[in-house]
Amino acid sequence: MKKLAFIALSILSIILIFLLCGSFASQKGQQYSHLRVNSNRIENRIMELAEFGKNRHGRIDRVAFSEADILGRKYIMSIMQEAGLEVKIDAAGNIIGRRDGSDPNLPPILTGSHIDSVPNGGKYDGALGVVAAIECAQVLKENAIVTRHPLEIVVFTDEEGGLVGSRAMIGTLTPGALKVKSHSGKRVGEGISAIGGNPEKLAEAARKRGDIKAFIEIHIEQGSILYTKNIDIGIVEGIVGINWWTVNIEGFSNHAGTTPMNMRQDALLAAAHLIIAVNRVVTSEPGRQVGTVGRIRCEPGAPNVIPGHVVMSVELRDLSEEKIISLIKKIKEEAKTIAEKTNTKINFQGIDATAVPAPLDQGVQKCLIDSAKELGFSSLVMPSGAGHDAQNMARIAPTGMIFVPSVGGVSHSPKEYTRPEDMAKGANVLLQAILKIDQGTLSQ
Amino acid sequence: MKKLAFIALSILSIILIFLLCGSFASQKGQQYSHLRVNSNRIENRIMELAEFGKNRHGRIDRVAFSEADILGRKYIMSIMQEAGLEVKIDAAGNIIGRRDGSDPNLPPILTGSHIDSVPNGGKYDGALGVVAAIECAQVLKENAIVTRHPLEIVVFTDEEGGLVGSRAMIGTLTPGALKVKSHSGKRVGEGISAIGGNPEKLAEAARKRGDIKAFIEIHIEQGSILYTKNIDIGIVEGIVGINWWTVNIEGFSNHAGTTPMNMRQDALLAAAHLIIAVNRVVTSEPGRQVGTVGRIRCEPGAPNVIPGHVVMSVELRDLSEEKIISLIKKIKEEAKTIAEKTNTKINFQGIDATAVPAPLDQGVQKCLIDSAKELGFSSLVMPSGAGHDAQNMARIAPTGMIFVPSVGGVSHSPKEYTRPEDMAKGANVLLQAILKIDQGTLSQ
Repeated sequence: MKKLAFIALSILSIILIFLLCGSFASQKGQQYSHLRVNSNRIENRIMELAEFGKNRHGRIDRVAFSEADILGRKYIMSIMQEAGLEVKIDAAGNIIGRRDGSDPNLPPILTGSHIDSVPNGGKYDGALGVVAAIECAQVLKENAIVTRHPLEIVVFTDEEGGLVGSRAMIGTLTPGALKVKSHSGKRVGEGISAIGGNPEKLAEAARKRGDIKAFIEIHIEQGSILYTKNIDIGIVEGIVGINWWTVNIEGFSNHAGTTPMNMRQDALLAAAHLIIAVNRVVTSEPGRQVGTVGRIRCEPGAPNVIPGHVVMSVELRDLSEEKIISLIKKIKEEAKTIAEKTNTKINFQGIDATAVPAPLDQGVQKCLIDSAKELGFSSLVMPSGAGHDAQNMARIAPTGMIFVPSVGGVSHSPKEYTRPEDMAKGANVLLQAILKIDQGTLSQ
Repeated sequence: MKKLAFIALSILSIILIFLLCGSFASQKGQQYSHLRVNSNRIENRIMELAEFGKNRHGRIDRVAFSEADILGRKYIMSIMQEAGLEVKIDAAGNIIGRRDGSDPNLPPILTGSHIDSVPNGGKYDGALGVVAAIECAQVLKENAIVTRHPLEIVVFTDEEGGLVGSRAMIGTLTPGALKVKSHSGKRVGEGISAIGGNPEKLAEAARKRGDIKAFIEIHIEQGSILYTKNIDIGIVEGIVGINWWTVNIEGFSNHAGTTPMNMRQDALLAAAHLIIAVNRVVTSEPGRQVGTVGRIRCEPGAPNVIPGHVVMSVELRDLSEEKIISLIKKIKEEAKTIAEKTNTKINFQGIDATAVPAPLDQGVQKCLIDSAKELGFSSLVMPSGAGHDAQNMARIAPTGMIFVPSVGGVSHSPKEYTRPEDMAKGANVLLQAILKIDQGTLSQ
């Protein structure tokens, strides 16, 4: 009887301990839900970082591997230390600021972005994702919260030059990519060495599926959807695939005064029809696909000579690869008709700079949606029309992205602007999502 | 009685002398109508001249004031001397080869063209008009024919740089024009000095109305009308006016991935609509007007950026200035609609490189038509879509132009070609027309 009572008591104790723990955990969750980032500190750090590479026109020239990039990275490492992070540079030059978790067996939660800019860029692109991530770590430190999973804040190398750092992290940065000339003039390999990486040991920077609990990147939208619709937070459902073509149009260059209109083979007239066809095909069906002709060169290029040769770009983006394929098929059909009508030859050449669409993790998305909702922010599930390191990370880890409004939709420009309150909202969603994921919201 | 008989005899004698002279003149006319140029000599001289400035790709680089131009001019002066001409260089650098007439009180008949080429040009443009003119003089010399009027063969300075020599000859070459940088890199004034002219005494090169009996220029058509229609001779009724505009299109440069199609202000899309509008407006009414967009620059010019700014040229040509004005009015109206539709701003700026239409002399035209007919050649009255020194000469002298077929309509190109038999036909029309004008066909 005594033994039976002891067993019953033991079971009861275990149940009670479980219940207690559960209540404590729930209380912890509730307690964390009141945590908020420091909006001023984010804004100030964005402005401080913008000093590195600011040229006399107020534009940010902090291309990867430049002196400004190197100084900007030093600044970031200093604020990482202020936030209590242990700072390392991996073989690809990625900066990793780490905060240990309570369980050394768990994989880290990663968050971050990049600080390199395009030439003549703005203050927010990339920078926000790094500063907001450090802010989350600093809030945890200030509130003496130890997460179960380690937290790693990452600054990816040379994002604007083709997502270099994240490609290295997923193990797909090829030796050929190291030879590419970066915006700084240095080859990528030389650049990685210059910022403290080791291009000969790239494999050490690579992580594999299961190594990372989740990756979240916060970024300015770079478009005008959130701003125009007055929505606080964009939850990215996927990053669009991008396909590029170079189109060559061969006409016949001739005297603009002596060649009657009906005897011309005007390559620029053909190009004009094609530019309009690209626009018509892309806009004539529902969806969020985009198509752009952004570059054109016309030869010989004199006002009094009929253009004999045009080279132009065509770019298509969509979340669905099938849609991109179907669009280019229609555009090529129109090109055939245009070529016949204008007596020119039109040739499409696919360019090896394409990105496949990258759908993001449904679980992380839900976590972000819930966080935004609990914080009282409006949100919209949307694709990312721009490329991001997240599209690489999505190949090895559950990945999510948070967008905050870009005023006027401007980006890659000194006019790029995101309001401090919007940056803080995004950082708060990031902080809550990290805590949710840490507490086991994600099924994996 | 005796006195009366003497008077009657005198009158009779005078009548008889007149009749005799008339019969002689008519006989001379008949005799001259059998004169023919030497086709081989024309062809050989064209080929010899082409050696000056021929580059290793077989293209002719004999831009005005270059070393090749100077050597080419020396060659031309040597064959002028062979043809019995007295050679001078006027203050504008124009070469004048003169053959005296029987009546020192009569003004000279002028014929000629230019030997400077565009960069990477061909063998025939300009050169034929000079070589054929010298050939006519040489045939007259070989047949010991003395015309009543002096004959002057002219090689105009720097035609391709803006009809420099003929502008000087009609007294409209301004001091400002002397400062313009020519294709050779030299300023026009420096170039004139380098070829033996004297830019400080330009007024000495100027002639006034009445100084010239007539001017005739023979030139390759530079278009494909004669070649396609298989017509021997083009009789130019006038030289078209040329108007140029620079069109600035302001859109808004933005990210090609993140900017939805309906939120774009794509300057290149607007330009495409405008290029098509220029073509549509120009071709939608009867006539021989032409309109060309030959130059386009698109900024920033990256495949992944929506173009924010486009600069393009618009050129219109016609024999009627009113038509040019009416066409550009319609084009500007279309541009207004395009600007609204594409949410861009389109601005037209007229360029000070316009030429007013130059109708050619009806009497000289008739003379050319009759000469072609008598020689058994088919001919067509047509406008010149290209600019020529003749358009300047037409302002001070009865002026005509003879066109010969350009194979395939190609010009300003190393592929420029005119068959020897066509060159000879044109030169024979020139020779007969000079003789007709000399014998008083032109009423003036």
